[in-house]
Amino acid sequence: MPDTATEKPVVARGLAGVYALESALSFIDGEAGILVYRGYNIHELAGKASFEEVAHLLWKGHLPNQTELDTLNAELRANREVDDVIVDTLAKLPKNIEPMAALRTAVSLLGNFDPEAEDMSPEANYRKSIRLTAQMPTVLAAFDRVRKGLPVIKPRKEGSIAAEFLYMINGEVPGAATEHTLDTCLVLQADHGSNASTFTGRAAASTLSDLHSSVVSAIGALKGPLHGGANIAVMRMLKDIEARGMTVEAFVAEKFAKKEKIMGFGHRVYKTLDPRAVSLREMLIKVSEEKGEMKWYEMETKMQQLVKDAKGLNANVDFYSAPLYYLMGIEIDLFTPIFAMSRITGWTASIMEQYADNALMRPKSVYTGVTDLKFTPISDRG
Amino acid sequence: MPDTATEKPVVARGLAGVYALESALSFIDGEAGILVYRGYNIHELAGKASFEEVAHLLWKGHLPNQTELDTLNAELRANREVDDVIVDTLAKLPKNIEPMAALRTAVSLLGNFDPEAEDMSPEANYRKSIRLTAQMPTVLAAFDRVRKGLPVIKPRKEGSIAAEFLYMINGEVPGAATEHTLDTCLVLQADHGSNASTFTGRAAASTLSDLHSSVVSAIGALKGPLHGGANIAVMRMLKDIEARGMTVEAFVAEKFAKKEKIMGFGHRVYKTLDPRAVSLREMLIKVSEEKGEMKWYEMETKMQQLVKDAKGLNANVDFYSAPLYYLMGIEIDLFTPIFAMSRITGWTASIMEQYADNALMRPKSVYTGVTDLKFTPISDRG
Repeated sequence: MPDTATEKPVVARGLAGVYALESALSFIDGEAGILVYRGYNIHELAGKASFEEVAHLLWKGHLPNQTELDTLNAELRANREVDDVIVDTLAKLPKNIEPMAALRTAVSLLGNFDPEAEDMSPEANYRKSIRLTAQMPTVLAAFDRVRKGLPVIKPRKEGSIAAEFLYMINGEVPGAATEHTLDTCLVLQADHGSNASTFTGRAAASTLSDLHSSVVSAIGALKGPLHGGANIAVMRMLKDIEARGMTVEAFVAEKFAKKEKIMGFGHRVYKTLDPRAVSLREMLIKVSEEKGEMKWYEMETKMQQLVKDAKGLNANVDFYSAPLYYLMGIEIDLFTPIFAMSRITGWTASIMEQYADNALMRPKSVYTGVTDLKFTPISDRG
Repeated sequence: MPDTATEKPVVARGLAGVYALESALSFIDGEAGILVYRGYNIHELAGKASFEEVAHLLWKGHLPNQTELDTLNAELRANREVDDVIVDTLAKLPKNIEPMAALRTAVSLLGNFDPEAEDMSPEANYRKSIRLTAQMPTVLAAFDRVRKGLPVIKPRKEGSIAAEFLYMINGEVPGAATEHTLDTCLVLQADHGSNASTFTGRAAASTLSDLHSSVVSAIGALKGPLHGGANIAVMRMLKDIEARGMTVEAFVAEKFAKKEKIMGFGHRVYKTLDPRAVSLREMLIKVSEEKGEMKWYEMETKMQQLVKDAKGLNANVDFYSAPLYYLMGIEIDLFTPIFAMSRITGWTASIMEQYADNALMRPKSVYTGVTDLKFTPISDRG
């Protein structure tokens, strides 16, 4: 069948409803609000398994025993340092660029300096997955420090990914409660079916392009405000409401009147509560109480009720992660990069799964133009 | 419909046969071997329209008149220079990395230094498309020079993209025949429906991620040996046959016996001759005669016959572009980056088309695992 203008086949806009692949990584039941990683309901894992255990689960198919976890942690800790050229380059970037754009460059550079970048063996790809997961917090924290004119903090060879990231950002080892909150956020965002960034990474991998290239492609997709960028947009919305001294009711009414989208609501897959939002909301209540700052939670509770009543839409993962990160003292524009720090595990697991049973992603398109124009020399063109 | 393990829906592996989008950019009739850009059969354009005219055609929907072409050429020439940080960074990369991996980093850096990187207005995206098309030859030539220990040649504000690229690589302005050959190669590779890299770029763009991020995603896909990387693989195959002193017959027989793929044959879309291959083959004959070096052409003619007779497969665009670039004195590993230098026009036109009528690319996946595992504490794991 040609890509043709005459037959007008049905176009699956946004690939909605198209089953593009098989995967053993995660299962989503959008009607029931269920998310499963490799057999485990997300509520079985959140708060119990560490992010490193979940990384092992996604990569290797089972939760690690103590020996396996010790090995993985040792490898993650040993691979945190990055080449000086990468930090030096980050220091030379304009200070006002989006952190996701800096992360895109940094991960591309990590590929340039990875001695196994072009090694497509499963063993090398697993080692590269570990390295990238270990290095992403380092380059993100380095970018955040250099743009503020602060000295870069080198990674230590100890601690969890969550603790080490907060240490490299703030220069202080976080308390156990804060570490556990961020760790759980990382667990909740580690994988999510054939979401747009994972799918983009798989599309790149389907040409048998290398793992770093495929991850850089996924980062390019996550950056968009319809995907990972949504958590930043949610927090900016909440801050905007506060800055304008508006009530949530007035803000929502204004958005409805202008027929504008309210960030943080609705999801292509979930027709009911996003199970990740449920966990994040619980954490938001806890952290808000600990910090004695209920404002954001109260605003969100009101907004969720209004949007649900008027449009039937539920809040999604971005809605509750945004104020949670904010209360943890994290810069708003780092919210999406933190999503990437987590999703790198799902991306790499998906890319390796794609390599193991590959088919080049090459859909058809419907041509909407004419086909019979005749060339005219430039002197004859109007 | 949930992503579900129980219902086993049909999976469109590689999205084969799925109409993923509408586009007014290019039309492919794979049965008849027809490729059309914006209404013009590729044979109407190849050898007649310059690459710059074709860029205008793809971006603006019509071939430019003289005033429009003069304006575009002035903009392309004015935008060739890149920030010193980018060239300095390329100079610090390991010398033995793949040029496509260097290009990925360079284009990501171009985004970091583009003052309009986050401006999503159609006007800014058009200006960024021009800039990227102007800058890619500069960063590629710079990388090629620094890895050889040669001084970087700054772009001039004159000449065509084809001529300027060869000048910056070799330090010599090419002759008119060589310039015309490369220019025609760029025309032939400028767009090609929803191919894997364009589709990957569109998938990133569908999150409303910025233009540079979407292009970097496309580069990640083009790098793979099942896509842009194939022209490199073809030339290495030809050189390998020569180095081993084999006949083409013996090589093809060996590949068949090992059930290995022969690079440069077959195409997801074309079931007959790839029209680009037809044009490239004609140019290969001409350039081989000019250079008095018929060896590669003769090897390929024999190979095409053997593969066609045995498997019914036709040679594709990569098969004939490879020896053509080689005869022009271009390094083998730059063949795919030259493809990118051309396809940047189709990528950016496609990304802008995606923005103008967007739907988030979010297919479904079929989960192949179980869903009912219970969490066990790490001390209880085997």
